[in-house]
Amino acid sequence: MVSAVPLKNSDLPKGFRLFGLRCGISSKPGKKDLALFWSDRPARAAGVFTKNLFSAAPVQYCQKKLKVSAAAQAVIINSGCANACTGKPGMADTVWTAKELAAALGIKATDVLVASTGVIGRHLPRPALGRGIKQMAGLVRKGTPSTEDAVRAIMTTDTRPKAARTTFAVGSTVYTVWGCAKGAGMIHPNMATMLSVVLTDAPISAQPLQQSLSDVVKRTFNCVSVDGDTSTNDSLFLLSNGEGIRGDIRPLSSKGLNDFRSALEEVCLSLSTQIAVDGEGATRLAWIFVQGARTEKDAHQLAATVATSALFKTALHGADPNWGRILAAIGRAGVSFDPNKVDVSIGDVLVCRKGGKAHYSEKVVHSILKKDHVTIVIDLHQGKAWSRYATCDYSKEYITINADYTT
Amino acid sequence: MVSAVPLKNSDLPKGFRLFGLRCGISSKPGKKDLALFWSDRPARAAGVFTKNLFSAAPVQYCQKKLKVSAAAQAVIINSGCANACTGKPGMADTVWTAKELAAALGIKATDVLVASTGVIGRHLPRPALGRGIKQMAGLVRKGTPSTEDAVRAIMTTDTRPKAARTTFAVGSTVYTVWGCAKGAGMIHPNMATMLSVVLTDAPISAQPLQQSLSDVVKRTFNCVSVDGDTSTNDSLFLLSNGEGIRGDIRPLSSKGLNDFRSALEEVCLSLSTQIAVDGEGATRLAWIFVQGARTEKDAHQLAATVATSALFKTALHGADPNWGRILAAIGRAGVSFDPNKVDVSIGDVLVCRKGGKAHYSEKVVHSILKKDHVTIVIDLHQGKAWSRYATCDYSKEYITINADYTT
Repeated sequence: MVSAVPLKNSDLPKGFRLFGLRCGISSKPGKKDLALFWSDRPARAAGVFTKNLFSAAPVQYCQKKLKVSAAAQAVIINSGCANACTGKPGMADTVWTAKELAAALGIKATDVLVASTGVIGRHLPRPALGRGIKQMAGLVRKGTPSTEDAVRAIMTTDTRPKAARTTFAVGSTVYTVWGCAKGAGMIHPNMATMLSVVLTDAPISAQPLQQSLSDVVKRTFNCVSVDGDTSTNDSLFLLSNGEGIRGDIRPLSSKGLNDFRSALEEVCLSLSTQIAVDGEGATRLAWIFVQGARTEKDAHQLAATVATSALFKTALHGADPNWGRILAAIGRAGVSFDPNKVDVSIGDVLVCRKGGKAHYSEKVVHSILKKDHVTIVIDLHQGKAWSRYATCDYSKEYITINADYTT
Repeated sequence: MVSAVPLKNSDLPKGFRLFGLRCGISSKPGKKDLALFWSDRPARAAGVFTKNLFSAAPVQYCQKKLKVSAAAQAVIINSGCANACTGKPGMADTVWTAKELAAALGIKATDVLVASTGVIGRHLPRPALGRGIKQMAGLVRKGTPSTEDAVRAIMTTDTRPKAARTTFAVGSTVYTVWGCAKGAGMIHPNMATMLSVVLTDAPISAQPLQQSLSDVVKRTFNCVSVDGDTSTNDSLFLLSNGEGIRGDIRPLSSKGLNDFRSALEEVCLSLSTQIAVDGEGATRLAWIFVQGARTEKDAHQLAATVATSALFKTALHGADPNWGRILAAIGRAGVSFDPNKVDVSIGDVLVCRKGGKAHYSEKVVHSILKKDHVTIVIDLHQGKAWSRYATCDYSKEYITINADYTT
């Protein structure tokens, strides 16, 4: 996994340019709030979206749009206003955004994807957004792209920009997969995280593009929880423009596709982990591994229950070796297993053996829990299936951030 | 509902005496940690218990005991150690406790119910407990009972004792239903709350006693959440000794039974509400009413999802009129409904109409949310079923209490 956050323009796959600016939607003074992800030629596009019944207008719009045509040349994202629970006027605002941008850039409105993030239940301010769109089109025509400006423009309560990059080779051709994401609260993705855009210059056709994304999401973005709340705006876009090859775009071979899928998983795993690390108020990341389960579904359910347990997350904050809370969480998860076979390790120390206390030093476990990254392994010894979940601790800062969000 | 907490000996149903003392299980200096609920003659007994797979030794013991004989003369409860996840030695400790108490009191061990609460994964200290049991038997023989000592002895992180009392009449005979409870964290009961004992001098036979309890629990203890975590030790006992009538114990008529059930529900509702009010770090109680649902199960699931949403609970703490989080929570609850029909009121102010923002004053809603008790009404307009859930806010104090619990 790449350690530095790749925010340079040269980090991007070929043929993509990113821009970010402030148009005035966000109430935070000076905060950039409008981002454009631009492909120099129309790209194939795939997406996964929130399963929340109150999905925001742009989510509904993009779902419909991608069904009609799995292609896009621009993704426009605003922060500061989620355009969720805004009824027909909200949908009209999204349609208007796509049309305004398409007109300003001289492309088809059906080649525009739209996403919004911020407060739920408020309407987009068209005058500010309209000005921002015109300015954005000017930047595309003769401005300097700025990957960092775009990645920062989609942030809300995030404390740092999140991006990841990897490459893979097919023969002598090297392709790049790059992605960015935002998300710090209302994070318990169900199909995708709050907002993420992944770009590649590899030539992938629409159907395998969507299939790869849907598959990878299950093991990456859908295995992260900050607070157990699934957003109304979760959107993850994947664009492939095939700029990486010369001449005609020919789809990759099945070996090439496999390598692409691995690269995509690497980028998505890095992005989703960065979201957990930057969870609202988080001071610590925990990986919850559940192994020895009968089915992957069981393992996922158990890992998710620990990852969202308020008592586990507060104990994690205090570096408290309270493994009883881990057992209490899996015991109420609605999964059937034999509690007398369960082992739990914190780091490499076995703290619970066959459902009871193991011999260990509280001091050693406390020092393991004080690290930035902690791994918890829960072994049911009842099968071969496993799952992994990333979560963060609950701190007083989480309460401060969320007790007074809209005002 | 009774407002003052009934802790006087004269508040109890006839024929019951309560005692509490410190034997040294709890690590809090001076904290009383052993309670005895004593019936002067053997009583019929019913119980509901946690559904957590890691149910504690005393839970497993009482479930088995009540199946064999639905009777009890004594309930012994210790705080400071949950005796959960303690394997065979833990079960041996529970059996030993029942036998020691029975021998000291000159009753059958099968007439003893046992419960424990406190840290998971630690063993009961037999020497301290044994001394406490002997002292307790002495109190029963010639000591003065103290209802308040008993109710305080079962407390852990509770900040106040919880008890409730009501009466009902059958002809000219007045019966009393009295109960107490403890619980402030790991509260998301599934069949019962952390620990509660309800006593009555009404003559109810074993089968309707259990039936009434199981029925009432669904609408009371199972509709309370502090943190979404279901304990390993949830136990609720109901004892009926029939001391309220003279002469032979004859079961109540069906009219009398109905009145008993109403009285039981009143007491259980009061106790479960007191638990939410005293939730760890809580500053505010919220009632979540979901109405207009297709089924009661749907309504319950929606209310529970809002009641356990970290984002709702932090907004409640900040008195933030963020109704979007209420919609986001019900939208991910896994219940099917039409989001465009949903109304939400905070207090008596409609904040969301047909899934979108209603016209209201943020200032007025903020002032409603600042009160100690807040009522949220979510109307789906899609049926006639409803459910009600009590929950509390998440404060920084919750984090403080739980970040460093075992050490």
